[in-house]
Amino acid sequence: MQGLHLTADLTGCRCATHWLLDAPVLGAACVARARAAGLQVVGELFHAFPTAADATGQAGGVTATVLLAESHLCVHTWPERSAVTLDVYVCNVGADHSDKARALLAALEDLFQPTRVERHALQRGAGDTRVAA
Amino acid sequence: MQGLHLTADLTGCRCATHWLLDAPVLGAACVARARAAGLQVVGELFHAFPTAADATGQAGGVTATVLLAESHLCVHTWPERSAVTLDVYVCNVGADHSDKARALLAALEDLFQPTRVERHALQRGAGDTRVAA
Repeated sequence: MQGLHLTADLTGCRCATHWLLDAPVLGAACVARARAAGLQVVGELFHAFPTAADATGQAGGVTATVLLAESHLCVHTWPERSAVTLDVYVCNVGADHSDKARALLAALEDLFQPTRVERHALQRGAGDTRVAA
Repeated sequence: MQGLHLTADLTGCRCATHWLLDAPVLGAACVARARAAGLQVVGELFHAFPTAADATGQAGGVTATVLLAESHLCVHTWPERSAVTLDVYVCNVGADHSDKARALLAALEDLFQPTRVERHALQRGAGDTRVAA
């Protein structure tokens, strides 16, 4: 279960608004970019949140999840904040998929055209263990 | 999009093997525990990997993803290693769901009965920004 988990939290996204609002369109783009990065898609689930019923009438965001043979991709959009969070997690047992994960993250950042990006990388299952109770 | 992303990488899991092998059973447990923690489930997707076709005949693992109004839960199992990875990510815009996330993670750790746990907590969208190219 050793693997690499990349996160990127994007703000000031300058992309066309359909990337933040349209679940099927965003989902298809996520699947296509995962495959283009060399990752194996085994499942997909996209959810569109409803427009706010209150006076704000804020558009709802989208969650797009792509299950991979190598682990998963999760994307959440917040159109009212022009913000997006990205998670790409690849298990590296048997082969090192780290470069594919980085390529997928970069492709998704390109899609959303953020003004700012906060990135983190977590090596999972690499030690730092504690005995459970 | 400020939020808390908890990860736990479990090894030496002493649970009954169906929790590592049976996608519908594990998936239902994940949904139930998310709801019990006070989180709002908006979607679910479970995938069972096939048994290895090679001489090892190793049982395939399971991926269980639960989409939440607050963000997501992802579980991956590696039965051949008695290992599991857990991700619970909650957005804390509007309300602080951190305690619910911690409760869900604890409930899932209890389910799998690991010998060892490697935990990380990432505060997302909390600054540490860099200007994108």
